[in-house]
Amino acid sequence: MRAKLIDIEQGQNEVIINEDDARRTNALVGDRLQLKCGNASATAIVDHSKTFVKPGEIGLFKEVAEALQAGEGDEVEASPAMRPASLNYIRKKLDGGILSDEEINAIICDLMQQKLSGTELASFVTAVYIKGLTTDETASLTKAIIASGETLTPPVRPAASEHSIGGVAGGRSSMLVAPIMASLGVCFPKTASRAISSACATADAMEILAPVTLNVERIKQVLAQANACIVWGGGVNMAAADDKLIQIRNPLRLDPQPLLVSSILAKKKAEGAEYVVLDIPTGRGAKVATIEQARDLARAFELFGTALDLKIKVSISDGSEPLLKTLGPAMEARAIVDILSSRGGNGDGALLEKACQQAGILLHMIRGITREEGYNISRHQVENGRAWQKMREIIAAQGGDDNVTPQSIAVGDQRHTVFAASDGRVAHVDNKSVSIVMRAMGAPKEKLAGIAIHVQKGQRIIRGEALYDLVASTREYLQEGIEVAKKNAVVELDRVVLDVV
Amino acid sequence: MRAKLIDIEQGQNEVIINEDDARRTNALVGDRLQLKCGNASATAIVDHSKTFVKPGEIGLFKEVAEALQAGEGDEVEASPAMRPASLNYIRKKLDGGILSDEEINAIICDLMQQKLSGTELASFVTAVYIKGLTTDETASLTKAIIASGETLTPPVRPAASEHSIGGVAGGRSSMLVAPIMASLGVCFPKTASRAISSACATADAMEILAPVTLNVERIKQVLAQANACIVWGGGVNMAAADDKLIQIRNPLRLDPQPLLVSSILAKKKAEGAEYVVLDIPTGRGAKVATIEQARDLARAFELFGTALDLKIKVSISDGSEPLLKTLGPAMEARAIVDILSSRGGNGDGALLEKACQQAGILLHMIRGITREEGYNISRHQVENGRAWQKMREIIAAQGGDDNVTPQSIAVGDQRHTVFAASDGRVAHVDNKSVSIVMRAMGAPKEKLAGIAIHVQKGQRIIRGEALYDLVASTREYLQEGIEVAKKNAVVELDRVVLDVV
Repeated sequence: MRAKLIDIEQGQNEVIINEDDARRTNALVGDRLQLKCGNASATAIVDHSKTFVKPGEIGLFKEVAEALQAGEGDEVEASPAMRPASLNYIRKKLDGGILSDEEINAIICDLMQQKLSGTELASFVTAVYIKGLTTDETASLTKAIIASGETLTPPVRPAASEHSIGGVAGGRSSMLVAPIMASLGVCFPKTASRAISSACATADAMEILAPVTLNVERIKQVLAQANACIVWGGGVNMAAADDKLIQIRNPLRLDPQPLLVSSILAKKKAEGAEYVVLDIPTGRGAKVATIEQARDLARAFELFGTALDLKIKVSISDGSEPLLKTLGPAMEARAIVDILSSRGGNGDGALLEKACQQAGILLHMIRGITREEGYNISRHQVENGRAWQKMREIIAAQGGDDNVTPQSIAVGDQRHTVFAASDGRVAHVDNKSVSIVMRAMGAPKEKLAGIAIHVQKGQRIIRGEALYDLVASTREYLQEGIEVAKKNAVVELDRVVLDVV
Repeated sequence: MRAKLIDIEQGQNEVIINEDDARRTNALVGDRLQLKCGNASATAIVDHSKTFVKPGEIGLFKEVAEALQAGEGDEVEASPAMRPASLNYIRKKLDGGILSDEEINAIICDLMQQKLSGTELASFVTAVYIKGLTTDETASLTKAIIASGETLTPPVRPAASEHSIGGVAGGRSSMLVAPIMASLGVCFPKTASRAISSACATADAMEILAPVTLNVERIKQVLAQANACIVWGGGVNMAAADDKLIQIRNPLRLDPQPLLVSSILAKKKAEGAEYVVLDIPTGRGAKVATIEQARDLARAFELFGTALDLKIKVSISDGSEPLLKTLGPAMEARAIVDILSSRGGNGDGALLEKACQQAGILLHMIRGITREEGYNISRHQVENGRAWQKMREIIAAQGGDDNVTPQSIAVGDQRHTVFAASDGRVAHVDNKSVSIVMRAMGAPKEKLAGIAIHVQKGQRIIRGEALYDLVASTREYLQEGIEVAKKNAVVELDRVVLDVV
């Protein structure tokens, strides 16, 4: 058959054949074909078309075309392929069965080889959501996810890491915990994510200070040099299967606990961490709404962590409001540099407080001291300047400029101040609105975009007082931010007098 | 945004926007957009592309382009659309909830309006498979499916219908039961399917005798004229939602009982039937493997039939072997004409036997006589020629030629006889091999293709004896049939002497 390239990513190996060819060769929608093109081969799932693909043609979506290294019009040989055995295991889970290590491994391998369709994966995720996974199954899944990607071996022991399940604007704890721990001789191989649905994640902010897309060899050099790194996890292809499962979970908004847990633990284990502190933000707008749900999730992390030979503590924190006053990739990087280079003197303190508590928990686990002692040691490392010194080493090792200062970091030069329309009291600063407004201004891609909040929760406000600034890189982006901010309140005021009867 | 047409059917309303536009407008993969183009509007699900769709463009898959009546380059307005409420109901089913009439209706309505993605529907089907549906939920689903399409009101009462869950080659009972019942004054509004994964279904065979793609108005005329019809269900868009659910169930090979039951009953109810006889073939290669499973399914049909005010009886039959000796659309039509016009004198009798039993069950229900009396009356209607007379009326009413004879029906003129390679006894004639080989010869599209079987199960065979003929419309098709038949044994022989020690 002649290749017809379709420049669309389908998230699965998919081909389209003409209905007549399909009938002749008995290839039903959802069947598998074994394809050969030159020396390359791949398995793909069949779809039909009446007119888009002519008889004798085979439409190759992007993933298959790349796997086959096929060009337009190239000759492609197609023969029926076996239905992957992993489909039987997915079916077994649907039927309430318990999957073996090998069966879970087969599902993850086929997932990685694009052998499973979105429909089939949705069925698997749904079955896991409904039927759950046993401790053994979760451990198997986590190990399979770890094996699906690259792993790090820290050059120095002990090695520790930190992770928050996210959802809080300005949640850049790792950028403080990493230099604190490394300055105390603990290796801290942190792989961070970029923003997907939010406007700024740790990899986006760190990228202002240094390159974050490093391969495993480079990361080893960075760890040897600075005893810590803050790099983009997507750049090292760690726990690769997890990214694919997340693509299925997102549209369904399904976060089955076993998948959430294995997703995070696989990444920590792949980093080579032995000690891990996890953070579960709760409260209004957070991913976990109540403290009971957070405790339940914390227990699951501890249980499966043990099965993976990870020492884990979980903190449950208030996730209802941003942790920094200045938000957006460049502005958060600037805030981190400001906190560290001022030895903790600048900034409103919420993020530093949280980071020192997280570091304190790690020190408690590693050294057997109390959490309070750990907190004090961590704070001391910031105040004596060693955390800043270590952060400069990390920046330099990753290839950034270690002479950075808060002033040297550029932020957007288009500003618009939003003023209070009435007297009142600050009731709430909203993470989701922050995210939506910053995205409207192009973040995370537009790194200079951001929001600077001027007020504190609970503060009394007089009509006309400045609440926050929108910061953008162009007038057009600023205008979009202004429009979107009108419909999404970043700062909510309670009127002190609510009504007059 | 400018429309870019993508001539591919996605089975859902889907659009592709450029990643930059997506980021700017905060439109995540899986989000919904409300689209306007001229006076037409539609909701569509968002996917992203890096390069295929440029900024400012919106890629419209076939369904959306048609809904919007959009041409290449047309201006399309896009704004965020609400997440359909039905997603909450799908989630509720995942969480083990029981859905109300309204909630199930909302799912089916959104399904019909292409508002749900394949991933979301797969999740729903999986949840129904795992959690099941209550009697009330199944009744609600069936009613919603009925309401999703057109319905018939038979001009004469009582009205009866017949349905087999399928999988048996030559299972053309309806083409005998319809004229038998109608000749006895019972209205028989049969809507039949075309072959999807098999090589010939009732609509394919009936189409040899008369047009089967009739709209509701025409069907009413046919019923007024002949008191029965045998038309293609897909032509009248009855129980339309069911076809969409089947598209999801097929690739997953999931046949959750509540969906199977509601699928079939919705179609019978939409036909306007009051009395229904259903057939569940069991045995080797059949859809239902054991008689216990068949009994379980039969109980479900009776239970839900009552909830829908349908009088239902279920027969469980041997579905392991073909019911006719000559198979394929034209050859099956010829066999039916042969059986009826010879007043039951020709043919090997298996299909006629079964059809008279089915008709007997309906007469038992309608007239309160015994099944045996019903069987005898039915047989008599064939033997006295009234069934043939009625079939000719049905053919004429649908627009066919009622002077048809077995000889006037053309079949393929390319023949190849397959001979026994050894002595032995006929152990099995395989439905699935029949289907695969006939599809290789172009059936159901190539209506003249077929297989003529010359032997009976249990018959002793001498090496070199003719087992069956392949019949095709061209030499190429015949050659394909020969090749495929080598790998898929249509007739299996047991050697009488199995081994010599």
